[in-house]
Amino acid sequence: MSKVKLGAVPLVYPIPIVLVGASVDGKPNFTEVGDCAVMGIKPALVTISLSASHHTTKGIDETGVFSINIPSTNMLSLADYCGIVSGRNVDKGTLFTTFLGDQTAAPLIQECPVGLECRVLEVVQVKHRRLFIAEVVECYVSSQFVESANGKETVPHLSKLDPIIYALDNRYYRIGDAIGTGYQEGMSHKES
Amino acid sequence: MSKVKLGAVPLVYPIPIVLVGASVDGKPNFTEVGDCAVMGIKPALVTISLSASHHTTKGIDETGVFSINIPSTNMLSLADYCGIVSGRNVDKGTLFTTFLGDQTAAPLIQECPVGLECRVLEVVQVKHRRLFIAEVVECYVSSQFVESANGKETVPHLSKLDPIIYALDNRYYRIGDAIGTGYQEGMSHKES
Repeated sequence: MSKVKLGAVPLVYPIPIVLVGASVDGKPNFTEVGDCAVMGIKPALVTISLSASHHTTKGIDETGVFSINIPSTNMLSLADYCGIVSGRNVDKGTLFTTFLGDQTAAPLIQECPVGLECRVLEVVQVKHRRLFIAEVVECYVSSQFVESANGKETVPHLSKLDPIIYALDNRYYRIGDAIGTGYQEGMSHKES
Repeated sequence: MSKVKLGAVPLVYPIPIVLVGASVDGKPNFTEVGDCAVMGIKPALVTISLSASHHTTKGIDETGVFSINIPSTNMLSLADYCGIVSGRNVDKGTLFTTFLGDQTAAPLIQECPVGLECRVLEVVQVKHRRLFIAEVVECYVSSQFVESANGKETVPHLSKLDPIIYALDNRYYRIGDAIGTGYQEGMSHKES
């Protein structure tokens, strides 16, 4: 299997599509972001990266908090739109029904099945990219998606959440079939 | 749509499954990681997060470089296995055909359709999690997946790469259908 070298391309995939929310000059604003990931479960850590000059970035710098809202595929055109236009020119807070997080007052999107309230812990700037490492302080899930396990409410099945997925081929995708269980699929190698 | 609060849960999805490679005490080692994302295109930035005590972490701290190798679904059981066992006890370098990156000598996996050579720029530790912010210095793609655009070799279609996707429901998934194009789907809202 010969390899072709494409140069300095950050070809990590799949890319999650989220709407990052912040209060900018007192108004809710949302931008489409793919530069977002879990960075740990306990403590509950996430990282996002934004252009230093973006309108949402200003709000996060001012308030020290932000939200991550995860749209479903039925919100694709609105999510993409939030990546096309700037909050400097368009009031993107009016595109959604919003609510404020209990703990941080970061603006969240009611229509998204999952929303996370995040508090910034560390900021790292690399050239024009501003990376925010944050703790998740609350996770809001639309009630119809919540599962129960051992009498406790727990995270939804990914297929039910129907996320928008992106890749550097500049296409959006939907999630496919479940193919296995974590920490189980590899046990055959352990036993052999 | 009423919301249920699940507490401090970092419910970002989908999660990419990658194998992070590093040379530890002079031997290639690989571990399964979901805490990984693109953090910028130009400059080409990625972030990964590992437990500070893990074997691979030691190698990255020692060498300042690592690789990100992205398996396809036909490698699911091996990828999962790399997340179950530690390089302290198992020589995971023997599970794959490996090669060294041209620029960093980080060990890469031949069988993965995509591999990235990464050089650490910043390290942030939050409790026991160690986050490495890195620049991608080279991207290796198996030749059969490379596309051409305007006479230039470019990134593959995500569906052909057939990635392993994970979520906090502890299930693995495959990618589904393409549903749109970036910076196009939202144009209808712009024109209206």
